[in-house]
Amino acid sequence: MRTGQRTGHPLDAVIDIQFDGGRGASGWTVPEYGNMVGPFGGATAAFILRVIDAQADRLGEPVALTVTYAAPIADGEFHVDVELVRTNRTNQHWTATLTQDGDVKSTATAVFGLRRGVWSDTEAVMPAVGEPPSYPPATWPLGVAFLGNYDVRVIDGAPPEDEPPAPSSLSTFWVRHDPARRLDFPALAALADIFYPRVFLRLGRSVPAGTVSMTTYFHAGAAELERVGDAYILATARAQRFAGGYFDQTAQLWSRDGVLLATTNQIVYYKDSR
Amino acid sequence: MRTGQRTGHPLDAVIDIQFDGGRGASGWTVPEYGNMVGPFGGATAAFILRVIDAQADRLGEPVALTVTYAAPIADGEFHVDVELVRTNRTNQHWTATLTQDGDVKSTATAVFGLRRGVWSDTEAVMPAVGEPPSYPPATWPLGVAFLGNYDVRVIDGAPPEDEPPAPSSLSTFWVRHDPARRLDFPALAALADIFYPRVFLRLGRSVPAGTVSMTTYFHAGAAELERVGDAYILATARAQRFAGGYFDQTAQLWSRDGVLLATTNQIVYYKDSR
Repeated sequence: MRTGQRTGHPLDAVIDIQFDGGRGASGWTVPEYGNMVGPFGGATAAFILRVIDAQADRLGEPVALTVTYAAPIADGEFHVDVELVRTNRTNQHWTATLTQDGDVKSTATAVFGLRRGVWSDTEAVMPAVGEPPSYPPATWPLGVAFLGNYDVRVIDGAPPEDEPPAPSSLSTFWVRHDPARRLDFPALAALADIFYPRVFLRLGRSVPAGTVSMTTYFHAGAAELERVGDAYILATARAQRFAGGYFDQTAQLWSRDGVLLATTNQIVYYKDSR
Repeated sequence: MRTGQRTGHPLDAVIDIQFDGGRGASGWTVPEYGNMVGPFGGATAAFILRVIDAQADRLGEPVALTVTYAAPIADGEFHVDVELVRTNRTNQHWTATLTQDGDVKSTATAVFGLRRGVWSDTEAVMPAVGEPPSYPPATWPLGVAFLGNYDVRVIDGAPPEDEPPAPSSLSTFWVRHDPARRLDFPALAALADIFYPRVFLRLGRSVPAGTVSMTTYFHAGAAELERVGDAYILATARAQRFAGGYFDQTAQLWSRDGVLLATTNQIVYYKDSR
């Protein structure tokens, strides 16, 4: 555990990095961001993104981030080493490795880039839903810690607690930080992982499951994130296929006024019995 | 250029690897798989996947592959080094780096895993379309070499040649190798990149554009790929948002009898003028 007293938002504790003098940095797991086993995958993604973002020769803003979850991170200190792979005129490629006692727990690749004033359009259609207060807060049967940092309103696809299997894996939530916190790229990287495993819905119960690899594309620039502030965002996810112990999850994150902030996909390991 | 006479399918030339005695391997660009600049991104993905697949201690089948395209590969020899990050009980994490004269051109992360007999279901719905011969062969305004290896029948979203902008970036194709070749994991990894840039449709013309990072989830096991053989597969793709010089592409690849073989996403750099 990190020494000294902590103040501020738990997410800022998650992305509180201590640089090692080179390109690497140490972090500490934050109890409030714990998951079933190890920390919330979104917290790991946020931390890695923050370490790259803090590099002095970083160019532009996050465009793409892939994080693989090779093994659970144990409570305590971990280390992230980042490598600048290549700098092009308008974008930059990075890789990162998260280790703990010499064991690799996660790897990542990231693309950062300059956003330019070119023809732009949003082709996806934001789900038509009501205002956040008109939906009930989510209740989480599993009681994992990290969900305590989010106010989640369930429009579709509430987490099941021994219910009949649902025909669809679709979940749509309004979600914001609780306590309130502004949206920035690390917060958005974490929110991309806010959905519980889609297989729970389809089986009507929780089973062992965990993200193996997650890729997030950041469509919004920093100014768009700033305009979101601490408002609710709309998060919607579903699976396309469950087969052989792996399913995908494809998701969108929208601002309240219809900006597609990010699209994100992950592949998830699952079992069908406890 | 590689010495000696080449026989067989051009895709087998693409994935013809020469091991360096360790975990690395050399490959050679194949003229038939050239793109506008450098080789077809799908060829690079296929090669990297094949190198990992050939490792003696590889566990299981491809589950996920992310390839980043940091810089164009020049014609000729290149080298791929792979690293085994971690072996778990049912899956394995790999990273790979493609270099040419010491410069990194691509990086990759891959997850391989055992497929198990668990509850399975396909939730996505295959587009309802007619038989392949009822659709016209694609004509490619850009005349890039790699498309000569595919028989593409256009259901929706033909590549535009100075036409009015289309309201949708959706393309749906029947596609098979021409000359015929069986489907395997490297072939599927390549097919995941068969779509031309979605921005061409929306602008009604071609503009500079290139994949920055591509992630493919392999839902099918080897037996399902084998059953496809050299038949047509249905490939459908669209963008969700174009903004600031980057757009995403989300796509599905289906067997003719309705098996969702793979889902794939990429983030693509674009300009809006030549």
